[in-house]
Amino acid sequence: MNAILLAITGWDPLEWDARFRALPSGRDIRLWPDRIGHAADIAYACVWKPPHGLLAQFSNLQVIFSLGAGVDALTGDATLPAVPLVRIVDADLTMRMTEYVVLQVLTIHRQQRRYNAQQRQRVWRELPQPAACEVAVGVMGLGVLGAAAVAALSRLGFQVARWSRTAKRIDGVATFHGSDGLDAFLARSEILVCLLPSTPATDGLLDHALLRKLRRDGALGGAYLINAGRGRLQVEADILAALDDEKLAGATLDVFATEPLPETSPFWTHPKVTVTPHAAAASVPSALVANVLRQIGHFERGEPMDNVIDRVAGY
Amino acid sequence: MNAILLAITGWDPLEWDARFRALPSGRDIRLWPDRIGHAADIAYACVWKPPHGLLAQFSNLQVIFSLGAGVDALTGDATLPAVPLVRIVDADLTMRMTEYVVLQVLTIHRQQRRYNAQQRQRVWRELPQPAACEVAVGVMGLGVLGAAAVAALSRLGFQVARWSRTAKRIDGVATFHGSDGLDAFLARSEILVCLLPSTPATDGLLDHALLRKLRRDGALGGAYLINAGRGRLQVEADILAALDDEKLAGATLDVFATEPLPETSPFWTHPKVTVTPHAAAASVPSALVANVLRQIGHFERGEPMDNVIDRVAGY
Repeated sequence: MNAILLAITGWDPLEWDARFRALPSGRDIRLWPDRIGHAADIAYACVWKPPHGLLAQFSNLQVIFSLGAGVDALTGDATLPAVPLVRIVDADLTMRMTEYVVLQVLTIHRQQRRYNAQQRQRVWRELPQPAACEVAVGVMGLGVLGAAAVAALSRLGFQVARWSRTAKRIDGVATFHGSDGLDAFLARSEILVCLLPSTPATDGLLDHALLRKLRRDGALGGAYLINAGRGRLQVEADILAALDDEKLAGATLDVFATEPLPETSPFWTHPKVTVTPHAAAASVPSALVANVLRQIGHFERGEPMDNVIDRVAGY
Repeated sequence: MNAILLAITGWDPLEWDARFRALPSGRDIRLWPDRIGHAADIAYACVWKPPHGLLAQFSNLQVIFSLGAGVDALTGDATLPAVPLVRIVDADLTMRMTEYVVLQVLTIHRQQRRYNAQQRQRVWRELPQPAACEVAVGVMGLGVLGAAAVAALSRLGFQVARWSRTAKRIDGVATFHGSDGLDAFLARSEILVCLLPSTPATDGLLDHALLRKLRRDGALGGAYLINAGRGRLQVEADILAALDDEKLAGATLDVFATEPLPETSPFWTHPKVTVTPHAAAASVPSALVANVLRQIGHFERGEPMDNVIDRVAGY
């Protein structure tokens, strides 16, 4: 009874099974699809992209834990049981996302792609370089990941602003919210960092109409997009069009509408595009497993759990 | 009287002349070599790599200001008048060096060169990625630049240690010093960041004997060198040998024994080397000029100046 089911696709489920067994929890661990046992034993499900309909068959299910930050694959399952849905967010994941955002913003700011091209041509030429305090970065994103990225970029001296769907206050950071605030936010941002979740309200948000509103006459002399949120946010044909008509000077994309990115995608070879394989902030298994077990303890003692998803808002 | 002489090689002296004239200082600005006027008028010299012997001819010279951080070209001039020698260091320059160090450390840590190579081959593969807290970075460098880099890397979660020639205390940072501390410092550092000045004690320091002592069995699985100090610190044949015998897994070099880097240098095309053209932390002219004029004001009022060089130590 009170068994933990692991239902994982895309990642190696046996590795997760081993990690859960490695921690001294005394829990009964079941593994979909081959080692479920009695369905009625399952109290907790730890999942990544489980097939739609799977979780509906566990009548005693009490909590669903998403092992990755993106829960859109879950909330898109109309048959998902109406139990608490918890996103496992650990400090390690936040640090990794911060590393990725800082690396990619600095790569754009310090013109490293141009320096790499100069190196290939054996050209020794220092490029005019604005200071970080002249460069406006805009971060779209809620919660812990967005706040950490904003803090790290601010400490490096960038002019950082943040946009969220609903009003937020962050000391010392310009904040914009809602559709009313979006145009002003875009008009001052030269580098747009997108860390938004995929929801009905955000899917397709990164289209040509949005990208053309970014600031192009700032210190960098062009507008740049970094998307480390979800692939469904981006209209990929529009990103390519914006690169080609110079509304965008560059795009750094970690996520795509279809993953793995198909070999035929023009993003692979586009001279203004950096592709990373959804590697911005991978979950670190051992930390996540410890977090799941800790949260199950909270739940069983009647204490609140962290990062419970609002099923209506989708994040 | 009390005129300011600009003696600049390598950069465009007319641009510096225009910047000094643009600020409302009321100062008499002279320009070497064509517009020196009476040598006895010169009280202050603002220089970058002036020819040896030049400054000895100004009998009323009171202060020499170095417009760049490296003063080795000056201290190597045996005829340099024994007046205060001031290195112009401004906050902007420190921020730029911090940006460069953070960018290059994150590029190594997050394996961006491998991801770039994968992109060229249309390969979608997430690489195993240690957390920053598993990676040991060692910063060699005194003063403001080193301290700022250490602080920024520590905030990103790296295990940061610092080595300096003489003992220093920094709260929360492991510090090593002197030749006694060097081996232990190298043995724990997977990424070595060199921000040292060029002095008789540091020239040639980055040789094979030193590089082979870096930690190669850490989280990154190899040792990396970032040199944004001075080119004379590095024995370039030894760096190439260390790359070839895998004592080094990569080198990111902003400075070279000969600059511009000759077209025939193997660094340009070495698959493990990133070359940038002494662009880590360019002086921003307008900020530097304001700083010089402010310091002349301090001097004339009998107040202490900042960043006066110890002529014996060479920094």
